[in-house]
Amino acid sequence: MTPQQAYDELFAISKEITTLHSIGSIISWDRETYMPSKGAELRAEQSAYISGRTHRLFIDPRVGELLAEAEAGAFGQNPESDEAANLREWRHDYDRAVKVPAELVEEISRTSVLAQSAWTEARRKSEFALFQPLLTKHIDLARQVAGYIGYTESSYDALLDEYEPGMTTAEVKRLFSALRDDLVPLVHAILGSSRQPKTEILHREFPLDRQKLFGEAAAAAFGYDLLGGRLDTVTHPFCIGIGPGDVRITTRYTLNFFNESFFGVLHETGHGLDEPNLPAAAFGGPLGDACSMGIHESQSRLWENFVGRGRPYWRYFFPRAQQTYPAALGDVTLDDFYFAVNAVSPSYIRVEADEVTYNLHIMLRFEIEQAIIGGDLPVADIPGVWNETFERYVGIPVPDDAQGCLQDVHWSFGGFGYFPTYALGNLYAAQIDAAARTALPDLDAQIASGDFQPLLGWLKTNIYQHGKRFRAPDLLRRVTGQAPSHEPLMGYLKAKFGELYGVA
Amino acid sequence: MTPQQAYDELFAISKEITTLHSIGSIISWDRETYMPSKGAELRAEQSAYISGRTHRLFIDPRVGELLAEAEAGAFGQNPESDEAANLREWRHDYDRAVKVPAELVEEISRTSVLAQSAWTEARRKSEFALFQPLLTKHIDLARQVAGYIGYTESSYDALLDEYEPGMTTAEVKRLFSALRDDLVPLVHAILGSSRQPKTEILHREFPLDRQKLFGEAAAAAFGYDLLGGRLDTVTHPFCIGIGPGDVRITTRYTLNFFNESFFGVLHETGHGLDEPNLPAAAFGGPLGDACSMGIHESQSRLWENFVGRGRPYWRYFFPRAQQTYPAALGDVTLDDFYFAVNAVSPSYIRVEADEVTYNLHIMLRFEIEQAIIGGDLPVADIPGVWNETFERYVGIPVPDDAQGCLQDVHWSFGGFGYFPTYALGNLYAAQIDAAARTALPDLDAQIASGDFQPLLGWLKTNIYQHGKRFRAPDLLRRVTGQAPSHEPLMGYLKAKFGELYGVA
Repeated sequence: MTPQQAYDELFAISKEITTLHSIGSIISWDRETYMPSKGAELRAEQSAYISGRTHRLFIDPRVGELLAEAEAGAFGQNPESDEAANLREWRHDYDRAVKVPAELVEEISRTSVLAQSAWTEARRKSEFALFQPLLTKHIDLARQVAGYIGYTESSYDALLDEYEPGMTTAEVKRLFSALRDDLVPLVHAILGSSRQPKTEILHREFPLDRQKLFGEAAAAAFGYDLLGGRLDTVTHPFCIGIGPGDVRITTRYTLNFFNESFFGVLHETGHGLDEPNLPAAAFGGPLGDACSMGIHESQSRLWENFVGRGRPYWRYFFPRAQQTYPAALGDVTLDDFYFAVNAVSPSYIRVEADEVTYNLHIMLRFEIEQAIIGGDLPVADIPGVWNETFERYVGIPVPDDAQGCLQDVHWSFGGFGYFPTYALGNLYAAQIDAAARTALPDLDAQIASGDFQPLLGWLKTNIYQHGKRFRAPDLLRRVTGQAPSHEPLMGYLKAKFGELYGVA
Repeated sequence: MTPQQAYDELFAISKEITTLHSIGSIISWDRETYMPSKGAELRAEQSAYISGRTHRLFIDPRVGELLAEAEAGAFGQNPESDEAANLREWRHDYDRAVKVPAELVEEISRTSVLAQSAWTEARRKSEFALFQPLLTKHIDLARQVAGYIGYTESSYDALLDEYEPGMTTAEVKRLFSALRDDLVPLVHAILGSSRQPKTEILHREFPLDRQKLFGEAAAAAFGYDLLGGRLDTVTHPFCIGIGPGDVRITTRYTLNFFNESFFGVLHETGHGLDEPNLPAAAFGGPLGDACSMGIHESQSRLWENFVGRGRPYWRYFFPRAQQTYPAALGDVTLDDFYFAVNAVSPSYIRVEADEVTYNLHIMLRFEIEQAIIGGDLPVADIPGVWNETFERYVGIPVPDDAQGCLQDVHWSFGGFGYFPTYALGNLYAAQIDAAARTALPDLDAQIASGDFQPLLGWLKTNIYQHGKRFRAPDLLRRVTGQAPSHEPLMGYLKAKFGELYGVA
């Protein structure tokens, strides 16, 4: 067997796994949108079948043999070639998958089922103790995983590597620490400002059918193709890429709150612009898949905040919003509206947080995750540490665990290492936005005239089309000339919110 | 390995195949309902993957060995036991599956893709010649299939057996011939009657949102569980059973025609009552699957026509229809409405045909299929024979092939042997309806008071819960004491339409 033959066979296996994942994405989407409630039990079996089958296909010793054969070829001579990039990612995922014993994978799976119902109950009653035993179990299992995967510096590295390969715990710590030092004073200055937005205008009546049409128009304006996607209503909004020609977004509507659905749609649209612009021919291998969780998040935040919460955007869209909601917005000025959608206020719930305080929510979770995985923090102490740190960062006391350490679903499925990618997405977004502005000097004027094609084209060329060809830090360096950094984000936040709130 | 162990392993394989089929059902449903149009190419790949994988799982020689081992056990001593019934059906399907070479299966699959676009084009232009070459190819392939499967009397037997096991061509011929001899004079008498319904009342305005709510209410009244199913809008309505807790129905709405959606919903509801009443524990094996296509169709026709087009039904539902559509039905009497929804008129399109003429459409297709598969009819002669026979049976000349031999999709996917099950469904429905009326002497009064539970309960006990435990003719004999017969259907049609049209 030649290295090329081995590569081709690997691609065929990878394509079978990808096809199964794409089928799995449809049944997940259906579960969240239209599945009748009594179908839940069967759906769990169907999803478990797909997970089990893809896992078994991938950990087959044949994959290891093929990888070794293909790696012995000359593909590595051009590390940016399609073959070298796919081999690098397959090797990474294969080594992770085979290092962890099947029994441990199953144990995590079983624990997740139990932990998710325990967490739901605990959050409902706001009683951390109800979740504590299964969280403790999950943490123990995650530590075992880290042990099997291996690490040089920190056990958290082994977990972070699943969500953001190429990023290290030390690097995240350095970035977050610098960001926090700059961010906390900015938050306090903003909250202390006498200039405050009239947020009540966002809480008037926005008829739901109009919200749907306005949201679809906003998504389409960015370049989201409604013939290759769709917008549906769910409880917890998400974007799901099924594959070439089919990337779906979701939202939820609140009659008396403009932001909930509108900025949610812009956020999911940002996710939904990445995948349709991956090379369709690469479907089946890592090059046909988005770069990383952090880069994926950077695109949702870039389109939602850097574009969609910007003044140029509303120069174009505010008159359209007024036409759509004459009763609610007829008497509102552009300046008041722009300030209102950029209101900064301390809040308990991460997913509702504004652009400035959002990152503090992530840092808090990262610090706690690191400490519990490293063994420095007993699980029982999480609520105390959470509440103390939250108040120090955000400036308000946490009223209960439901609005504190029990608010997010991630720990209930053992997703340790996932949270940092949310804040990394914000850092990356600021760096990419700055690079785009250098390359497109007329960007603000284009946005103000409703023309998003130049930005989309630049992102497609520089980010989307590469798939996983480069790891996130390498991609950033190529596109922005910089390593991951907190400075562009802080520069952006200080300029924008300094002007809005009149703080230095 | 004991026979029990072999049986258990077979059940596990069967359950894996069933799980994959249930996943395939979701992605088929999604394709017809909500899939964005650009997702079609990927969807075809996903569906082909599931078909290929289930086929390979089933034709594995291991399945043949396990069948032999299990059959050597004592299961056959009680042929109605779960194990014996499952083994009988697995054997039937396995023998069919392994007899046909994989290359022939693939050739049919490739031909179907080409034939479906050729048929679409041919129907659009009403030019049979555009479809003829691929239809000829499909017929040749179907004959090869029949040759591999084997048969004693008629090559058509081998094809019919795929859709209605236990039924033979000779038996269908006998039934259809007797039915035709009785039916044609009835049709002519009805069409010659001076008494005719006021069908314009069905072509007034029926607002679409009301049609959806009224359709859901009608489905729910029959016992269709909207927490274990849903009603969506599609181009070609269908019912799809995904599995326990999830059986979905679909319809299409026409503003100016009451029947299109309403009786379509009753029809699909009839299909959708069977599967939720299969024993959930049997999911994965034949006992967890509906008896046969003919029995499945009998349930859609029973609920749509024997119940839903009956006078007792409208005694209950007509006042509700008037409340729902006051402008359209406020001035209409129950008698006029009941007569209108039972209008008999010659029409070209099978799926729009009334209860009386419908069966003639099926007989025509059966006669032609038999002749072309048997080699007695050259493909080029199909339009001529179709048009001549149609006029003789239905009494009107066929204007073009689009409204004649090109109207149905079935031949484009090589589905020879499928059509007879539609008319068998009507025969079975009449036999089952008669048996139910004997067992439930108050049935009409129950229906007239909106109480469908006694009928549903009786069908559940006598039909649904058995799954594939009995072949269709055996099930009928158990439930009705009769072999399949045309007499109950003719008795029903003569009584009902004789009274409506004043003919003997």
